[in-house]
Amino acid sequence: MISVQEALNYIAQSPLNRRIQQVDLLDSIGKILAEDVIADRDFPPFNRVAMDGIAVAYQHTGQTWIIENVQYAGSPQITLSDPAHSIEVMTGAILPEGCDTVIRYEDLEILPAEGNKLARLLLPLEEIKKGQHVHPKGIDRKEGSIVLAKGLRISPAEIAILATVGKTQVWVEMPPQVAIISTGDELVEIDETPLAYQIRQSNSYMLASALQQKGIASQRFHLTDDPEILHQHLANILENYEVVLLSGGVSAGKKDYVPAILTALGVQKCFHKVAQKPGKPFWFGVKTNETGEVTRQVFALPGNPVSTFLCFLQYAQAAITRQAVRYEDVYLAQKVHFKPALTYFAPAKTYFDEGKQMAVPFEGSGSADFANLTSCDGFVILPAEQQEFPAGTLVKFIRFR
Amino acid sequence: MISVQEALNYIAQSPLNRRIQQVDLLDSIGKILAEDVIADRDFPPFNRVAMDGIAVAYQHTGQTWIIENVQYAGSPQITLSDPAHSIEVMTGAILPEGCDTVIRYEDLEILPAEGNKLARLLLPLEEIKKGQHVHPKGIDRKEGSIVLAKGLRISPAEIAILATVGKTQVWVEMPPQVAIISTGDELVEIDETPLAYQIRQSNSYMLASALQQKGIASQRFHLTDDPEILHQHLANILENYEVVLLSGGVSAGKKDYVPAILTALGVQKCFHKVAQKPGKPFWFGVKTNETGEVTRQVFALPGNPVSTFLCFLQYAQAAITRQAVRYEDVYLAQKVHFKPALTYFAPAKTYFDEGKQMAVPFEGSGSADFANLTSCDGFVILPAEQQEFPAGTLVKFIRFR
Repeated sequence: MISVQEALNYIAQSPLNRRIQQVDLLDSIGKILAEDVIADRDFPPFNRVAMDGIAVAYQHTGQTWIIENVQYAGSPQITLSDPAHSIEVMTGAILPEGCDTVIRYEDLEILPAEGNKLARLLLPLEEIKKGQHVHPKGIDRKEGSIVLAKGLRISPAEIAILATVGKTQVWVEMPPQVAIISTGDELVEIDETPLAYQIRQSNSYMLASALQQKGIASQRFHLTDDPEILHQHLANILENYEVVLLSGGVSAGKKDYVPAILTALGVQKCFHKVAQKPGKPFWFGVKTNETGEVTRQVFALPGNPVSTFLCFLQYAQAAITRQAVRYEDVYLAQKVHFKPALTYFAPAKTYFDEGKQMAVPFEGSGSADFANLTSCDGFVILPAEQQEFPAGTLVKFIRFR
Repeated sequence: MISVQEALNYIAQSPLNRRIQQVDLLDSIGKILAEDVIADRDFPPFNRVAMDGIAVAYQHTGQTWIIENVQYAGSPQITLSDPAHSIEVMTGAILPEGCDTVIRYEDLEILPAEGNKLARLLLPLEEIKKGQHVHPKGIDRKEGSIVLAKGLRISPAEIAILATVGKTQVWVEMPPQVAIISTGDELVEIDETPLAYQIRQSNSYMLASALQQKGIASQRFHLTDDPEILHQHLANILENYEVVLLSGGVSAGKKDYVPAILTALGVQKCFHKVAQKPGKPFWFGVKTNETGEVTRQVFALPGNPVSTFLCFLQYAQAAITRQAVRYEDVYLAQKVHFKPALTYFAPAKTYFDEGKQMAVPFEGSGSADFANLTSCDGFVILPAEQQEFPAGTLVKFIRFR
């Protein structure tokens, strides 16, 4: 049995080889960028008017200006003919040639004047700063510089930048092909009526929906606890899927064939059993190619629903999405007593109390009590070395909603 | 000009009428449940074995037991014939008739004995508790009780429960049909090479990707700053989409036709201009039917990319997804000075420091500096009433990654 940290290390040391692929801009959201993205122009690409108003030449500035012309956004640059005049300018327009400063409409009165219009400043002149309300060419990024570096995760902010530099297609790391397999002879399909000693499948739907929320497709399978069937189907699935999430079949039971069959199929065990509750029987292994690269990852998760979900959140999710889990800091709102020398992941609900994030643990009836989870938004992580966790103890938290 | 809180109130008071629809179980993830879900059986539905080992009748317990039989998961219940004997039991199985307690393999030695097998307890008998490792029928939820209440958001935990009660189809609130419209004559398509005074569209892609991450589809449009074209296309779009997200055209510029045209098309203005930076020119309006129900929501967002994104996060997102924004508590890692009487949303990056979530503001060059956002994971919210925010000030934070 290894520690939670050792389990995380093993998995981190066995990353799956990723395929990279070019996808349409909008399909890149949430994925890892697989190329450096270069600014094809300065950001902004011209001295850009940042407020609606007038543009003036600062050193010739008085208290009133004749308005010569209008510079619209999307129109070619015009030129100020008389440095004592001004040009009306619209947000997003290129700053007219000969101007360096913008004064907002809010600070002006626009008056008719001899066929022209006149702008009169409503503020003392000292309040106008040279260069104000101009977003200078290249101030944010220079043409040729890297605006987005390979390896970052694409959020809507990165989508805006990719659009700006004209990336209709983006090189990204593709998520792996994922198979989700539930095992257990007590499980029936969700459209069936279970007999007294049966229950409906739920883990594979839970895992598929969790992946779907991350934008990752998966294929679900159910296999019965028969060694030959397991062997044959697992062999097939391992041919076609890069990540296999199994639930059930990894404990000490007489029909817990999964670890032996995986080994027989050439999946090398990295570890079996982690010093944690729930999820102790968790098994993890990989297949590698001739050059030692990992081509398959197998997460054989314990079958109790809370165990399955927690092990997915804590171990499989980050490996599949390549997004490190964001552990939050929380303070226990109630004391917890937990005797075994295991890391205890207790379902909990969080709230903010004057800057402190508090977590109320819901112990319920253990790893099979998944109805409990609807009142929770994650798990507090209580270290194995301690047995008593007084209210107010600072611990880590893993969020699922 | 209204305050940020007033803007939030107006929007909250104008919720869109929602269509409810039955969808396949996995398509319900992330949506709002539109029905109460009832337990069709107890949770768990039978006295369920929670560990692999042997089941015994507690009051007849000695230090060794003859093993009579095996109770597998998914097999009909068997009966203990001699109360001094035991039955091997597998996790997930129904507890055999006549047994009430489970002893794990880890606490036993299994020995051969006269054709039978014998289980010998490795612990003092006092350490065995009556009823241990049995997950009693109905302890988590009773048949006929509401396991999931109408109105909650479906996470993977709720998917597991829906599967367990056999919901292949689920009544959910459907997200609205969303149109995203960018305006601005300076904008060209992303596959075009802009002229010196043009830039490529980015806002509509940013918004579409942000919605896509929430599982919500949208349609993008670009309209030029021509009042007739705007009028005609907006009329069409308002026929077919329930939520319209516009970017640009709402400031004080000479081509900022959007508010007037929306009004002409029967969209009632709820407000225009919010005392905030960025995003001050934000306009919000609705269309209602004869009975006063809101049938269309129009969010006319300022066109600067940071403003567009912030107004989406702060106002439009919650209205579209019906998921209240989760504001986090953070402490400023650096002092901020902001003079105007506006709520200041400053891009920021967060980290945890011994239980305190710290936020480092990145002021950059303002609302057009979206390259800045790649270093940030949200916005700190600095109240309008204050001008000085010393390091260590506790403020709210809105996260986008």
